[in-house]
Amino acid sequence: MMPSSIEVLEVGARDGLQNEAVTVSTALKLELIDRLIGAGVRRLETTSFVHPAAVPQLADADDVMRGVSRVDGVVHQGLVLNERGFDRAHLGLCDEINVVVVVSDEFSTRNQRMTTDEMLDVVDVIAARAALVGTPMSVTLSAAFGCPFSGEVDPGRVEAIAGRIGALAPAQIALADTIGVGVPAQVTDLVDRCRRAAPDVALRAHFHNTRNTGYANAFAAIEAGVVTLDSSVGGIGGCPFAPDATGNIATEDLVYMLERSGIDTGLDLDELIRTAQFVGEILGSTVPGNLSRAGRFP
Amino acid sequence: MMPSSIEVLEVGARDGLQNEAVTVSTALKLELIDRLIGAGVRRLETTSFVHPAAVPQLADADDVMRGVSRVDGVVHQGLVLNERGFDRAHLGLCDEINVVVVVSDEFSTRNQRMTTDEMLDVVDVIAARAALVGTPMSVTLSAAFGCPFSGEVDPGRVEAIAGRIGALAPAQIALADTIGVGVPAQVTDLVDRCRRAAPDVALRAHFHNTRNTGYANAFAAIEAGVVTLDSSVGGIGGCPFAPDATGNIATEDLVYMLERSGIDTGLDLDELIRTAQFVGEILGSTVPGNLSRAGRFP
Repeated sequence: MMPSSIEVLEVGARDGLQNEAVTVSTALKLELIDRLIGAGVRRLETTSFVHPAAVPQLADADDVMRGVSRVDGVVHQGLVLNERGFDRAHLGLCDEINVVVVVSDEFSTRNQRMTTDEMLDVVDVIAARAALVGTPMSVTLSAAFGCPFSGEVDPGRVEAIAGRIGALAPAQIALADTIGVGVPAQVTDLVDRCRRAAPDVALRAHFHNTRNTGYANAFAAIEAGVVTLDSSVGGIGGCPFAPDATGNIATEDLVYMLERSGIDTGLDLDELIRTAQFVGEILGSTVPGNLSRAGRFP
Repeated sequence: MMPSSIEVLEVGARDGLQNEAVTVSTALKLELIDRLIGAGVRRLETTSFVHPAAVPQLADADDVMRGVSRVDGVVHQGLVLNERGFDRAHLGLCDEINVVVVVSDEFSTRNQRMTTDEMLDVVDVIAARAALVGTPMSVTLSAAFGCPFSGEVDPGRVEAIAGRIGALAPAQIALADTIGVGVPAQVTDLVDRCRRAAPDVALRAHFHNTRNTGYANAFAAIEAGVVTLDSSVGGIGGCPFAPDATGNIATEDLVYMLERSGIDTGLDLDELIRTAQFVGEILGSTVPGNLSRAGRFP
């Protein structure tokens, strides 16, 4: 049974820009965020509080949060990987934080210099601190559909991690196909497992279109009961482990598919298409999303 | 309930090449077909018997059928729009024919110089002649998800046309999203309608990825009970009404999604990827399919 509406979490300003080669100024990031809000976006992954050396594109995270438009009902999410990041998100007045746990030890160690279990201990600490100040925390299970280093990921392991995180009562748990290898049958299975493991936690999903399965996965996730989908305007956000591959599913293409399927997103498709074209101008390249080239229908 | 296997009808040699700007020699077409058969393809839209002036790329249809490899169990389908085309397909020893009926009058008139009803009268004649010589006939309902000239297509009209064609007992009826505007909810609705209108006829579906809904539509079609999906190796076959847009769903990307979802296609993914790369070399461009760039997983 399909829902009548779904929430879209716009990740273009963070996950989208993070892997783009062109460095985008703080002013242009703020303009992008304003345009997105103007297109009806009400929840954004606004930036990431990681070490500037690790992700130069987002070294201006504190400036972005200082300059960002505060609009009633608009939620700015900050990505956080440790206590230092949490401090910065808190000082930057992020409305919510999102913590990333990479579910394979190989990828987790390369990305965050700790195993998945060690990262889960960090999540415990961040959760306690977030609860203390009343900031909603979500957790993304990264590489849940496959790991670029160790290959297949055991879905039972994802389920167990979701259970451990569920005990912290986060606002949402997100299943992320970080490298774009997932397929619809996997989506259905992993969503079911997460619901069993954390029955009281709302579920979110995050797909990349690297192997052209992203939109089919998004639809399968909605069918399976996910209430929020991540997407990036223009579909930017290529993965460093899959050169030349497309990035996140594009917000405008997702909204086209959903609205024409009778699922409301609250977003303005024409404004999204214009914003995708703006992103293309910023980056000096054609964005991976198709709507801004093919046009809407009818 | 998902099936354990699905048939893929490879349309690269016809629908794929038809709209490509680069003229491909007969020899290269035959090599492409041989490679596809080598990758396990058992049913191909091999060519089209239309007037050479209308589709110069396929002016060598008779030569292609004379030169094509005849392999046990491999079905060569020829596209036919009139009696003259049927004669050529019959002389060329096509194993089956496919007739295209454009379901909107505006598009049908521009494409075939007759209304949908007039074309349905032609289908009656071709069906009688095909039955006389024992050649299986399928019918594709083109632009069933939307028309580039008149916009939305009434699904009740598609249902009525499927009913009239169903009375001819064709081998299959195909629902085609010729311009790539369809979405999964539409797929479910139209497949249900066609099944009601023609309960004894097997259903096929044909999707373009113009607006990034092609693979989601393919999955929805399988869920709805379609037994055959059209796709083109490399995803070639851009639509002349949507410049710069991608073409058919790519066979290799479709097979990746299906096989990883536990649905067998009988096709060899590695060979398909190599064939998609071969198509890119022939056309001197990067093919729209993603697998040949991103690589398979794991």
